[in-house]
Amino acid sequence: MTAAPELAEPGRTRIGWIGLGVMGAPMCGHLVRAGYGTAVHTRTRAKAEALLEAGARWAEDPAEVAANADVVFTMLGLPEDVREVVLGPSGVLGACRPGALLVDMTTSEPSLAVEIARRAEESGAHAVDAPVSGGDVGAREARLSIMVGGAEDAVAAVMPCLEALGRTIVRQGGPGAGQHAKLVNQTLIASTLIGVCEGLLYAHRAGLDLPTVLESVASGAAGSWQLSNLGPRIVAGDFAPGFFVEHLVKDLRIALDEAARMRLALPGLGLARQLYQALAAQGHARDGTQALQLALARLSGIDWPGAR
Amino acid sequence: MTAAPELAEPGRTRIGWIGLGVMGAPMCGHLVRAGYGTAVHTRTRAKAEALLEAGARWAEDPAEVAANADVVFTMLGLPEDVREVVLGPSGVLGACRPGALLVDMTTSEPSLAVEIARRAEESGAHAVDAPVSGGDVGAREARLSIMVGGAEDAVAAVMPCLEALGRTIVRQGGPGAGQHAKLVNQTLIASTLIGVCEGLLYAHRAGLDLPTVLESVASGAAGSWQLSNLGPRIVAGDFAPGFFVEHLVKDLRIALDEAARMRLALPGLGLARQLYQALAAQGHARDGTQALQLALARLSGIDWPGAR
Repeated sequence: MTAAPELAEPGRTRIGWIGLGVMGAPMCGHLVRAGYGTAVHTRTRAKAEALLEAGARWAEDPAEVAANADVVFTMLGLPEDVREVVLGPSGVLGACRPGALLVDMTTSEPSLAVEIARRAEESGAHAVDAPVSGGDVGAREARLSIMVGGAEDAVAAVMPCLEALGRTIVRQGGPGAGQHAKLVNQTLIASTLIGVCEGLLYAHRAGLDLPTVLESVASGAAGSWQLSNLGPRIVAGDFAPGFFVEHLVKDLRIALDEAARMRLALPGLGLARQLYQALAAQGHARDGTQALQLALARLSGIDWPGAR
Repeated sequence: MTAAPELAEPGRTRIGWIGLGVMGAPMCGHLVRAGYGTAVHTRTRAKAEALLEAGARWAEDPAEVAANADVVFTMLGLPEDVREVVLGPSGVLGACRPGALLVDMTTSEPSLAVEIARRAEESGAHAVDAPVSGGDVGAREARLSIMVGGAEDAVAAVMPCLEALGRTIVRQGGPGAGQHAKLVNQTLIASTLIGVCEGLLYAHRAGLDLPTVLESVASGAAGSWQLSNLGPRIVAGDFAPGFFVEHLVKDLRIALDEAARMRLALPGLGLARQLYQALAAQGHARDGTQALQLALARLSGIDWPGAR
């Protein structure tokens, strides 16, 4: 019989955090500052220095993170990383305390989230999937949208931590539902951004002044977050990453694999994957997703103005 | 030598209006109420009754509308209609006064707008293309976005009329530039809506609760006007027209023809045209554009819940 999860509480609840990338580091920082005793681990120790100075404790591997934590967060790159860190030989699940709560915030496979939740239950632990949207800015400013999947009591127990990280925190259902909702989010973004890039490419080719076009189209029925936020960067030839192309490629792969598993055809998403795959192949894997403009321009032999 | 266009002014400037459909009728009404003496014509006279009661005068054909007007507006269906009404044997251009101003607000072909402007100039008249975005609600509430193409003096002269019809009124350049900007607008809408429908279809198939998913995704990086406004209608199975599928099909045809003329490949827009074409072929030409959900669901053998 699995012990019921205990409500997370600053001062009392001990946190473990694995993965201190561009998202994980600022997110973990919010919990440290909120007063949670925190052990951290990440592949490159240098990325932990600021958190260690702020009071976090270093752990040599995921098992050491888990050994003394009530709640263990993972914020990693790929589903394979999540599998290794959570289910692997020196992983979290083999080392965690009875009643511990595992929270994977990586955008990962819904089926893996279901498997982790099942194996956690078998080990007397609890697992929640809680991927986020909002990018590095949302992570720094604690304004993320967090899409949560898991048993109601486990989600309720970790809610105080999530509230320190985001602003829109919604339980989408049982294990894997958070991941599914995140894939919906990425599906929306992918096609919207195709529209943004093709619209701007058409405008450029037609000889229109791009900022003037944005003035007409951004606030009406054609408007979107992608257009308002990435449109001006595309116009300026700024393809620096807010969100990496290679991460979107990963997310679209997962979404399409899940869709295939559910016997669902998504032609727009299929096209998006091919276009982003081409963009990555052209050397833009570590650019921002708005660099799709370059692949679409190249398709018609156009040098996008301002691009390197 | 063409006379310079005169600034439109209520009480003095005589207006002609051709085309009183779901957009044209409320738009013309704003000008009548603003105090412009107005002659109207449309294919079905019954549609003019309310305007005639409000003080507009009936004209038997486009030539009669034009004969005594300083500014002639057209708000029609297809580019072929615009060609017939403006350039045809009993059309506006053959009958209008020297110095008259023609304003086509139909979403039509940029190349036709250029041709009309050239022939207007040859006849001592002026022409402006000024398609709109904002739908029937925007038309009724005078909150349209109006994308304007034409010579600077002609656009300036008609500006007082446009300001009675819309809120975002931007000159995009010379003749045809308004039409080009509108096609950018439709390109944005088409792919965004594919994302919206595929995202909701994925969510449905994954067993998520759709309103709960919208809560997580609508206000962040995946957000758009289409998602916020049409997402809830799709979830409710409401496919009543805000904007007709058959009109979007027409707009996408024009955009892709123009793109081809400019030697521009737009794969997302190409896919959108095929999907909307399928939707129209399935009997949904007179439904709202959000009915794309039905065609995408049908592709995977899914009956969308709530749909007729």
